[in-house]
Amino acid sequence: MTDLQLNSNQLRVSIIGLGLLGASLGMALRGKNILRTGWARREEIRKAAINYDVVDEVFDTPQESVRNADIVVLAMPIPQILEYIPLLGDCMKKGSTITDLGSIKESILKQSATLPAEVFYIGSHPMAGTEKSGFYAAFPTLYENADVFITPAQNAPQSSVDQLFSLWKCIGTHPSVIDAKHHDAIVARTSHVLHVLASALTTGILDARDSDTEAELFRGCATGFRDTCRIASSNPQMWREIVEHNREAVLDALEEFDQIYNKFKQEIRDRDFDSFEKDFARGKLLRDRWLEYKKNNSR
Amino acid sequence: MTDLQLNSNQLRVSIIGLGLLGASLGMALRGKNILRTGWARREEIRKAAINYDVVDEVFDTPQESVRNADIVVLAMPIPQILEYIPLLGDCMKKGSTITDLGSIKESILKQSATLPAEVFYIGSHPMAGTEKSGFYAAFPTLYENADVFITPAQNAPQSSVDQLFSLWKCIGTHPSVIDAKHHDAIVARTSHVLHVLASALTTGILDARDSDTEAELFRGCATGFRDTCRIASSNPQMWREIVEHNREAVLDALEEFDQIYNKFKQEIRDRDFDSFEKDFARGKLLRDRWLEYKKNNSR
Repeated sequence: MTDLQLNSNQLRVSIIGLGLLGASLGMALRGKNILRTGWARREEIRKAAINYDVVDEVFDTPQESVRNADIVVLAMPIPQILEYIPLLGDCMKKGSTITDLGSIKESILKQSATLPAEVFYIGSHPMAGTEKSGFYAAFPTLYENADVFITPAQNAPQSSVDQLFSLWKCIGTHPSVIDAKHHDAIVARTSHVLHVLASALTTGILDARDSDTEAELFRGCATGFRDTCRIASSNPQMWREIVEHNREAVLDALEEFDQIYNKFKQEIRDRDFDSFEKDFARGKLLRDRWLEYKKNNSR
Repeated sequence: MTDLQLNSNQLRVSIIGLGLLGASLGMALRGKNILRTGWARREEIRKAAINYDVVDEVFDTPQESVRNADIVVLAMPIPQILEYIPLLGDCMKKGSTITDLGSIKESILKQSATLPAEVFYIGSHPMAGTEKSGFYAAFPTLYENADVFITPAQNAPQSSVDQLFSLWKCIGTHPSVIDAKHHDAIVARTSHVLHVLASALTTGILDARDSDTEAELFRGCATGFRDTCRIASSNPQMWREIVEHNREAVLDALEEFDQIYNKFKQEIRDRDFDSFEKDFARGKLLRDRWLEYKKNNSR
């Protein structure tokens, strides 16, 4: 916050892509003394973004939108992030920052080598989202209290990293720097594997031989299923792209999961329910500690 | 509702066990023209149950509490349900019903053979709950719109089944009769396997070699983890008992899950992301259909 306010000129942030993440960011930045410009592929969304005060200004092309920006935020699917980095870098002003909200960081960091020397790539991965997508799923508190992983390119000056930190802090998130490759391994565990599992669980539970059984299975699913499998309702193409770009880390994380999962199965087979209970208690302890961490981290 | 109101005498329901499920039932039955009696092991809870209007009357022993009841509800862990059926059956009046809220039904139905000839067992499994337990976790809307599986013993008269249906309907749930063994197979899929998986996922995700990595993993877990692994915070002993009593059905359900889970893994290994996306879309379709079913089923 302080850094942004010390700036005599109003900070200009350009949000490229106005889906769930981009539009929610625009909403969160309302009233922060930041000029928000934006671009979305569809004209209807560009109009709505102005009408709903998601950004202050929209442009017909992404190139125009980024021209005077201090920070450009690529809020798009991974293939488009990779595509737009070289396209937009040349239109950006000297000393400006380009970031993205993608769920993987190593490939994007590599792609940032195509940028002009004085445009700095600093990746962002806010740990926030829902199973929904698109402009109309956005809401201003999406990012509140979220942790944000920041992956600066080697050439990014500390002042640019500080500026991006300030932007994230001013909407109530908790940024921290992490190595891009390490980031991909962490989120493979904390997010990507969850999506694979939630999807497999949903089909494993609800796929029925006949409609009578399906009705019983539907009745048998309650709030546990609703929450455990919520993210199975996410966008299939988006998750295909994420897993595709983080294939090895996801496979490693699945292997780590398999170790404890297979242990549970063996305990049930062996009727070793004392160990089962102990392992279940270990999971409870870990989740309860995480809840405590999140509570302490809330402002 | 109608059946209960046609009854010239006020219906007497005795709730044995005042944890999350028992106390929430008592709260839900407020103002329904039903006399609610109750018993809890701890005196502190029996007093609180009166002070918070969870039941109208408490007794020092479960035997006293069930003596004049038309319907006895065993809201206890499975081992206690199995223990109390023969203990309480002898104290119940002729023509009365004993039900329970246990997550498995076949073993309990078998145990009901020990009841006197004119006390009828009709199992209930309301698909409702949270990851919390105990009297102070209870709330009056826990059962709202829940599906309830009903498993009548062979000797139970239709009038008793109808009476229990009316009780469940009057608090906004949707009861339906199901075969006890079939019930256990259905809920192994829709509930028990979810708990095993959520627990394994939590440990697979959060168990870290060192405290630096743990901090990063904690930061990397967001609302997806919060919801997918919520039920991992459930009571380990309770879930041990449920899985122990439904071991074979749980193992079968895990095998069904493994089929689709292994398919996902193979697709990632083989870089067959077209199939991955198709399978993910299938899960989304199923979950979205379930959401639709639940919406249509809400009153």
